[in-house]
Amino acid sequence: METLLLDPDDVSAGAHTSELIVAVEEAFAAYERGDIKMPAKSYIDLPEYNGDFRSMPAYMKADDWDAAGIKWVNVHPDNPDDYDLPTVLGTMIYSDPTNAVPLAIMDGTTLTRKRTGAAAAVATDHLAVADASTLGIIGAGVQSYTQLEAISEVRDIETVVVSDLREEAVERFIDRFGDEFDVREGSPAEAAACDILSTVTPVEHPIVPDEAVGKHTHINAMGADAPGKHEVEDALLQRATLVIDDYEQCTHSGEINVPWSQGLLDDEDIYGELGAIVTDKLPARGEEGGPTGVTVFDSTGLAIQDVAAAHVVYEQATERDIGTPFQLVDTRV
Amino acid sequence: METLLLDPDDVSAGAHTSELIVAVEEAFAAYERGDIKMPAKSYIDLPEYNGDFRSMPAYMKADDWDAAGIKWVNVHPDNPDDYDLPTVLGTMIYSDPTNAVPLAIMDGTTLTRKRTGAAAAVATDHLAVADASTLGIIGAGVQSYTQLEAISEVRDIETVVVSDLREEAVERFIDRFGDEFDVREGSPAEAAACDILSTVTPVEHPIVPDEAVGKHTHINAMGADAPGKHEVEDALLQRATLVIDDYEQCTHSGEINVPWSQGLLDDEDIYGELGAIVTDKLPARGEEGGPTGVTVFDSTGLAIQDVAAAHVVYEQATERDIGTPFQLVDTRV
Repeated sequence: METLLLDPDDVSAGAHTSELIVAVEEAFAAYERGDIKMPAKSYIDLPEYNGDFRSMPAYMKADDWDAAGIKWVNVHPDNPDDYDLPTVLGTMIYSDPTNAVPLAIMDGTTLTRKRTGAAAAVATDHLAVADASTLGIIGAGVQSYTQLEAISEVRDIETVVVSDLREEAVERFIDRFGDEFDVREGSPAEAAACDILSTVTPVEHPIVPDEAVGKHTHINAMGADAPGKHEVEDALLQRATLVIDDYEQCTHSGEINVPWSQGLLDDEDIYGELGAIVTDKLPARGEEGGPTGVTVFDSTGLAIQDVAAAHVVYEQATERDIGTPFQLVDTRV
Repeated sequence: METLLLDPDDVSAGAHTSELIVAVEEAFAAYERGDIKMPAKSYIDLPEYNGDFRSMPAYMKADDWDAAGIKWVNVHPDNPDDYDLPTVLGTMIYSDPTNAVPLAIMDGTTLTRKRTGAAAAVATDHLAVADASTLGIIGAGVQSYTQLEAISEVRDIETVVVSDLREEAVERFIDRFGDEFDVREGSPAEAAACDILSTVTPVEHPIVPDEAVGKHTHINAMGADAPGKHEVEDALLQRATLVIDDYEQCTHSGEINVPWSQGLLDDEDIYGELGAIVTDKLPARGEEGGPTGVTVFDSTGLAIQDVAAAHVVYEQATERDIGTPFQLVDTRV
């Protein structure tokens, strides 16, 4: 029994965007149905290195497939300066739930970016106006690329407004996508005026001004992943239709965590979880009783998204002979 | 940045037994000192496959090294019959705590066997009589080999009595060790009469008879790893000096879990944790106030043992050019 090793290029090649979106939507649906096993993320805090490790094990069952695995990931903010390494490094073990064979070990960093884009696309598909054609992106870092790649699968995006203080990041983004879309640099306010806005920054002081946001804008608030992080102004969060991925994670470390801890938001302000919308338990935009104004999706990232994405990557990889088989684990009885 | 892949042979080659014993003893000492981070094992139960997955993340700090990682492991009892696979398959990710680089990914099955042998050796070193020369082993399966390998590092073992209902397992064991030791087959009672006894079975009804045990025998009860498992007769557990690896794990799923749940054992019956003995907070056998009769070490297996063993394997591997480097994770900033 061999384990398939999938490096960053392999994961990129296997992470077929439209299939990823379907699989991640199935993960949210399984979550709503209770067809998952997902222990809470467990943390190993290492203040001596200003970092932490997180383990994210999960199992999920869709209609005609299921999947299990674990992502081992970290946050070490000093990495870029001290080691010329990314803040976050991920490794994913993807296992067969029937017998626990480790089918694949793959780059979890690329996988995280891909599944995060797919989650934004799922939310956008249910919450953005049907004829959305403009996408604003605030934060042109490593997570911004998969936002455009995935969201453009669910809406006919023509114009992209990208905003970042780092000029070289904006240039890289435009270089990458300029041929496919009308991409231009803009202020956060200009980005916020688009039909769809994705925020992918690590800020602790909101950079999305309430008054600049379009009347029907759907916002994917992707950046916040720790207590104290906060991208969208409180007044906007208070008046928007708030959709979350997971109650515990969002109130603890998602976009809403700061106003939540200050009592500016409470249960009454939350429209529901994305899983309830994708399973039609709550109406989406355009459906009777669904939201009509500004919508905000607070995404913290669930282990089942990783498992769902790993499933797509592994299936693609085996079908297309991607990856390096390796005899890693002793399977003699 | 490359990750070192270590297959079963690589792990065996790198798991230098005497170094493993030192490292695992350092893990127990770090545990006692509080120099560890070890979230509770988290379980994903999959009754539909009669199996489960367990994630075991840990960090530990010894005097002049530290180590972090996670073992992803399972128990699928139908594997041998249904898939010709072992019940337990393990994968270990060994990471640099300073920046979270996945230094190595290794066969966790071999690693588990090695670190379990090392734990028995640490307990034996502190709890067996100094001139112990006979070792009984009940259960001649995959875990029995590392018991003899490791215990013979800390005591001058001459005679080994091996007991198993499966004749072919006994033969394999004798084939493997017959040249090095005087190995003979015996009943559980004959094995229990030795200076040291290791039990490595999955039984739920005790197979170590109280009356057969030697006056000063030290018993390593390694087999129990789930509620209901139980290798040593209650009367023996009640009169022996009981040493455990971890209070929560042992009372929940270790050798003592059954009599504990029945109220036949309580806190008063526990001598202490192995960590307290290796750090000289509790006297070992031969020290003033230390145990003089039968001793029992209840081993459930801690994530810090895996991390300590992985440290030894990785250091040996890099020093001796063992393993296969592979560019697994995207490290571009």
